[in-house]
Amino acid sequence: MQIFLKGCVLIAIFSANIVKEMQAEIITIGDEILIGQILDTNSKWIAEALNKIGVSVYQITSVQDDRQHILKAIKEAQSNADIVIITGGLGPTKDDITKLTLAEYFQDTLVLNDEIVSHIEQMFTKINYPFTEVNRHQALVPSTCTALKNEFGTAPGMWFYKNNKVVVSLPGVPFEMIGLMVQSVLPKLQATYNLPFILHKTIITYGMGESMLAEKIEDWENNLPAFIKLAYLPSFGSVRLRLSAKGATYEMLDIGIISEMEKLAKLIPDIIVGFDENETIESVIGQLLTEKKQTLAVAESCTGGNIAKIITSVPGASNYFVGGIVAYSKIIKINELLVDEKLIAENTVVSAQVAEAMAKGIQQKYHTDYAIATTGNAGPTADDTDKTVGTVFIAIATPTTIFSEEFFFGKPREKVIGRASNKALELLRKEILKN
Amino acid sequence: MQIFLKGCVLIAIFSANIVKEMQAEIITIGDEILIGQILDTNSKWIAEALNKIGVSVYQITSVQDDRQHILKAIKEAQSNADIVIITGGLGPTKDDITKLTLAEYFQDTLVLNDEIVSHIEQMFTKINYPFTEVNRHQALVPSTCTALKNEFGTAPGMWFYKNNKVVVSLPGVPFEMIGLMVQSVLPKLQATYNLPFILHKTIITYGMGESMLAEKIEDWENNLPAFIKLAYLPSFGSVRLRLSAKGATYEMLDIGIISEMEKLAKLIPDIIVGFDENETIESVIGQLLTEKKQTLAVAESCTGGNIAKIITSVPGASNYFVGGIVAYSKIIKINELLVDEKLIAENTVVSAQVAEAMAKGIQQKYHTDYAIATTGNAGPTADDTDKTVGTVFIAIATPTTIFSEEFFFGKPREKVIGRASNKALELLRKEILKN
Repeated sequence: MQIFLKGCVLIAIFSANIVKEMQAEIITIGDEILIGQILDTNSKWIAEALNKIGVSVYQITSVQDDRQHILKAIKEAQSNADIVIITGGLGPTKDDITKLTLAEYFQDTLVLNDEIVSHIEQMFTKINYPFTEVNRHQALVPSTCTALKNEFGTAPGMWFYKNNKVVVSLPGVPFEMIGLMVQSVLPKLQATYNLPFILHKTIITYGMGESMLAEKIEDWENNLPAFIKLAYLPSFGSVRLRLSAKGATYEMLDIGIISEMEKLAKLIPDIIVGFDENETIESVIGQLLTEKKQTLAVAESCTGGNIAKIITSVPGASNYFVGGIVAYSKIIKINELLVDEKLIAENTVVSAQVAEAMAKGIQQKYHTDYAIATTGNAGPTADDTDKTVGTVFIAIATPTTIFSEEFFFGKPREKVIGRASNKALELLRKEILKN
Repeated sequence: MQIFLKGCVLIAIFSANIVKEMQAEIITIGDEILIGQILDTNSKWIAEALNKIGVSVYQITSVQDDRQHILKAIKEAQSNADIVIITGGLGPTKDDITKLTLAEYFQDTLVLNDEIVSHIEQMFTKINYPFTEVNRHQALVPSTCTALKNEFGTAPGMWFYKNNKVVVSLPGVPFEMIGLMVQSVLPKLQATYNLPFILHKTIITYGMGESMLAEKIEDWENNLPAFIKLAYLPSFGSVRLRLSAKGATYEMLDIGIISEMEKLAKLIPDIIVGFDENETIESVIGQLLTEKKQTLAVAESCTGGNIAKIITSVPGASNYFVGGIVAYSKIIKINELLVDEKLIAENTVVSAQVAEAMAKGIQQKYHTDYAIATTGNAGPTADDTDKTVGTVFIAIATPTTIFSEEFFFGKPREKVIGRASNKALELLRKEILKN
């Protein structure tokens, strides 16, 4: 990163930003949301996507599959917002209630859209399914809307534009909704309105809790220029920091946000793992080991395979991950990882000595450069050692050394396993960087 | 299960149900929801909990941390519903905007609640933290509300009851909200209103997709009495069916729902794994192996530790799960699982022969009654075998036999790993039941 320190000038320029802030509302339709059967992930996805292109979300409303209720919600949303995005109620087995209600709302009639008919016909021919009257029915759309072709399903999206306001209706199936948003809705919104530029940068940190991190960077956060916002996204010992800048030109946002990231990097150099939104600690480790042509194996007791699972979630992990042993019982630790039975008797199985012996055992047996080992008690009940539930020893073997650390991860079981796994990866990454 | 076939009589009784249906609205407050930073899981939890005690949810609304916006949302919600549940905006670092807005809405003033002061003081003494003015401020509540003690945090819940309508305000931290709902809000709602009885039963199925299952039980579903509703909750090759009955007396619901479950059990006997909401296939396998005093080991290639991770997510798994090998590279399959190198050369590593050899290898090496093995290509790119991305072979070794099956799980990688893991557990369970 290069250093640009023009902060003061920038603030003055940004506060003169004259681009109008557009407001949106999101309406999700479906009884299944109101009975608590499904989690409404569509709203979060849409809210994040709109914010990224510079559209603010005023309200999110989930309503029943009911004509009157939908009419009321759209009317209310249009009174607050420029843009209304509706999802749900467009499937072939549902009663297409959204479509009929939108036609009613815009005092419009349904017409058959030939382009959509042929698109649906093609989709069915491809997978060798019969094209029925029910499917043809899906190509009926209000005459005044622009039908948006759905690459991943049969229900088209619908785009209404009237008095400089937009109403969009999308199917509720998440990947169909996302496909339509990315391919049609977001570009059309950007073409329709003069939206401010928005720039997001993510900083991935491991090894410091949210509240301690917040305290450590408090001064920096309080001195962020007004056009840059900070968000914390914590998960099991890892926190992603997202900086979002909004303004009139891309270049200036870029300069401003990079300057702030450089200041931040100086405050917390030890815990920053990456700067890419799609990066994870396991993908960073994968890149490092691939570059260095080095290999890794794991010996897991209390994490029960979770570390191997995380490592192998990265495509191409077979380039550096040889494999591992889940040594859940004592006998496997002794027979397969060659941990000395006396060592266990003297220190108990939940100990630094056993963790290190496990790491050494798997490193030698699998002939790898690095090895991770875990032993602990994830609970909920105590084991036959003297260690409190939530205690975990993590050992790392490198080409030159072996060491271990003791941690206390509290409860419940799921959190102990999750935090121990992330902590092990965090320790490993630091060692790889040293070598 | 015993058979009760009084369906026709029951329907007549239930339709005469005269208990009034109460309506609720849920309002979640927080800019972090509207910028798409966090997923609103509170609403789903509350909606499900309310439905379970017989309260319907009319609408869910997410609004900004803004006084005017909150006032408008509460007013609107009270015009539609008897019960309004609000979460968010009560933390110590936030501006307590919800509390002030509620006082304004009810034309009330904030007073210090001594009971809450001493509760917060006790909480801080316990963890040896200083009790500051900011914390004391949290014990200020509107004078007309009933303060609800928060066992898991410092912000109290607030219960307003006026003109037979209820407004409840809860903190947004999920486990604090859940604690207050379970300990205070749900019992108080049941005490305040004459709610209908609700009975839920869950049927856990593995091994049939949602659409195929829906087709198979279509007639049964269409003939369900009006007081019983069915919901599908699918996940990676497993579908939970939830039956919900609503009516005037518990006994009748129980008879009605059990009768329907018996009919269902006859239609799909092979794929039903359990009948308990909290059961999973891994917990069912754990119970079976514990009862039979039998043991299990796994040898995973393409699932990369995920099966071990799922098995060890069950508390007490060490009673039957000995351990496993993640044989990600060929050399580990040969050296550790004793798969013949020639067998791999002849059949490729993604084959029935190699899957079975892996299962046999781990079963013999770890001296277990059962073993699972997986080999396949989870993608995204093809490997050096001739198999399509998404192809997985699963082998099961039992005390008496070894067999394998070939599956095609499509993409993406995450789905292949998830479905392969669930399918392996499904095959294992059937074998344990046979032995």
